[in-house]
Amino acid sequence: MIVLKNGVVLTNDKDDRVIWGGTVCITGNRITYVGDDAHAPAPQPADTVIDCEGSRLIMPGLVDLHYHTCISRGEGDWLPLMEWLDETWYPYINNIDPESAYHAAMASYCESIKAGVTCVNDMYRQLPSLARAAEDSGMRAVLSNDVMLRKFGHDNIDTAREAYEQCDGKADGRVEVYIGYEWMPKGSPELLREVRALADELDTGIHIHLNESLSEIEYSKEQFGRRPAELAYENGVLGPDCVAAHCVWLSDTEIAMMAETRTSIAHNPLSNAKLGSGIARVPDYLARGVNVGIGHDAAKCADSRDLWENIRAAAVYHRGARVDSSIMPASTVLKMATTNGNKALHHDAGSIETGRLADIVTVDLDTFAMTPLRWGDDQQLCSHLVYSNNGSYVLDSIIDGRIVMRDRQLTMVDERDVIRNATKAYLQMRERLGK
Amino acid sequence: MIVLKNGVVLTNDKDDRVIWGGTVCITGNRITYVGDDAHAPAPQPADTVIDCEGSRLIMPGLVDLHYHTCISRGEGDWLPLMEWLDETWYPYINNIDPESAYHAAMASYCESIKAGVTCVNDMYRQLPSLARAAEDSGMRAVLSNDVMLRKFGHDNIDTAREAYEQCDGKADGRVEVYIGYEWMPKGSPELLREVRALADELDTGIHIHLNESLSEIEYSKEQFGRRPAELAYENGVLGPDCVAAHCVWLSDTEIAMMAETRTSIAHNPLSNAKLGSGIARVPDYLARGVNVGIGHDAAKCADSRDLWENIRAAAVYHRGARVDSSIMPASTVLKMATTNGNKALHHDAGSIETGRLADIVTVDLDTFAMTPLRWGDDQQLCSHLVYSNNGSYVLDSIIDGRIVMRDRQLTMVDERDVIRNATKAYLQMRERLGK
Repeated sequence: MIVLKNGVVLTNDKDDRVIWGGTVCITGNRITYVGDDAHAPAPQPADTVIDCEGSRLIMPGLVDLHYHTCISRGEGDWLPLMEWLDETWYPYINNIDPESAYHAAMASYCESIKAGVTCVNDMYRQLPSLARAAEDSGMRAVLSNDVMLRKFGHDNIDTAREAYEQCDGKADGRVEVYIGYEWMPKGSPELLREVRALADELDTGIHIHLNESLSEIEYSKEQFGRRPAELAYENGVLGPDCVAAHCVWLSDTEIAMMAETRTSIAHNPLSNAKLGSGIARVPDYLARGVNVGIGHDAAKCADSRDLWENIRAAAVYHRGARVDSSIMPASTVLKMATTNGNKALHHDAGSIETGRLADIVTVDLDTFAMTPLRWGDDQQLCSHLVYSNNGSYVLDSIIDGRIVMRDRQLTMVDERDVIRNATKAYLQMRERLGK
Repeated sequence: MIVLKNGVVLTNDKDDRVIWGGTVCITGNRITYVGDDAHAPAPQPADTVIDCEGSRLIMPGLVDLHYHTCISRGEGDWLPLMEWLDETWYPYINNIDPESAYHAAMASYCESIKAGVTCVNDMYRQLPSLARAAEDSGMRAVLSNDVMLRKFGHDNIDTAREAYEQCDGKADGRVEVYIGYEWMPKGSPELLREVRALADELDTGIHIHLNESLSEIEYSKEQFGRRPAELAYENGVLGPDCVAAHCVWLSDTEIAMMAETRTSIAHNPLSNAKLGSGIARVPDYLARGVNVGIGHDAAKCADSRDLWENIRAAAVYHRGARVDSSIMPASTVLKMATTNGNKALHHDAGSIETGRLADIVTVDLDTFAMTPLRWGDDQQLCSHLVYSNNGSYVLDSIIDGRIVMRDRQLTMVDERDVIRNATKAYLQMRERLGK
């Protein structure tokens, strides 16, 4: 059993309870006790006890709902999406080999774990390498291929099926395989239908890019006579098992399609802003009851994997853009990154309640970022988390009931090795590309 | 002498040199050597040597160009500016006493130092307490009172004169006193002229809020028939010794006034966004040659004092809002927070060159946030700093030639004491306010 005692527990339960001075117990990969310290089961000698000393918050881990492992970052930072993809993204992923993908994923997942992320929804290539990285780092990962039309010589529907067969259920079940779809400029209505058919056949989910940029929408209208989300709707891709990334520019009709089909949206504020894609209509999506989570997108374009930065951006960007401080309250945004992300992926996590999956992190409350904090003030705690915290204050991480970070030290890997290997893989890749 | 050797030196000099494997020497409060390791003067036994081991960046410290010490944060987070001021800001500052102000400033300055800030432009009250906090924490601080019309029973022009006489030049010259002016809803054209006259008499600068919100501009037009920045111009406040904070909504005419008078602007993207004030027309200001720096505003509304968060926001918000990835390049934004901030305050810092003031920080390059980094790639380094770094990776800080943080440990204070005292002062203040 793992016992986290004497902490502040942000439960995210239906009553939004915060327990100021509480214990959480974990047996196997499930939460077996949440409550005050006094009534907690007595720890046994074999148990691992983390004493939070009244200065650690215990909260659900974050879900990074739209994610791409990547091997490089900090290149072509001034390019808009289409040009950026062609000049700096596709050259790398077209040439990614199993070994490079593994090292890139290790660095990606480790960086995310250090920031408090306990699950990623990762669309990339070389899924067996990614599954191995999830195994070795301790991350929970929903993986999908970058499915495109065959003419691009990239991942296709067969690659996706093969990856599902090879990887779904790996890493003690922490790895699931979804069917990924790149985007309309690399796809077609037929391919959308193939993706849906395969997802249905395998009884798994879909991860797709939709309406990220105006140029993408123009392309889709010219080629197919429809906007991307309209095509996804008409060809049966949308649904409660589908995560649509970006959705910066949804028309009112398309918002209604998302709501009707109960599709989840992954909001990526920093990526959308940096690439000049725009500012998503998220307040409108929430108003229509659409389930919206938060993702960082990719370190190549976003660039930090500290999801707290995107949490803060989601909380404040829309207020600035709409000149309205009443929208996107802190509590709503914090739930987007926890509850909503898990809901999108149908994971039994995102709140600290008995019986739920133990994907839990602790956050240091004894920091300047959290000062002053009035003991017992739930609202102030939530405000500090959203507007002042960042990933470097996450101290411990438990994923699927296993401690993968303790006092900021990753327990399953040597951090320096991961950084060194990732850098080496990047430099070798550049050499292969003649850069 | 302090010797920082074997580092990567981001000089910010006129050639934008980055020295990959260099040394910086400091004697007294000035930089006395910048160059490769081989030609550096040999350290003497009495010298302090910081070996950067090829994995620390040596760069100019950040200037937080619009700053308010504050005693509270995380309250009223959903209010727009005017209501937020009345409900949560003024009640605290109206009642701030010398002791509370000292503890609040200590926590504020220490948090900023930990994030790599070496100078703050702080408009608050109880300046002797703030000067003492600058003395005790090691911070460089330009201080100003919150001057208002006498009827508000707050700071006035006499308070400002008195504070100048008491505090200017304190802390070995690290403290300067400017004349501060709250904003037009608490002022008048006469008061603007008094502020300018006093600044001229004392040969010091001016710190003012201008055009932060649409409600402020409406108020100013109704009361005085002019927009705030027009009034500041007509009443002689603008000039190269004036820092105008926010400037979210400047008309084209007002931008021309800023350019003509060589007034500096402090851009506060996170505060402006969170309060729903809007998104400043910064790309237009830069295009007109206005000197623009970056500030966090106040932890009460922003809420983190990690200036890197505002650097990133300044780099990406405008791209999102204008749907244009070509604006606000990383190198420009990084200079806003270093070179431009120092230029606004007429400080001889902001670049690492022989003879300049030694306000210098180091940043850990051996982190996931900086991975991968190709040795010798200046552009990638700059990109990582702006888009991926945050304050928790700042390792050392030297202000005015003194090491105030070493390996993330503040050298002049006990961090826990500062946090404890700040929390206590906040709780006592709430009690006094009957909250």
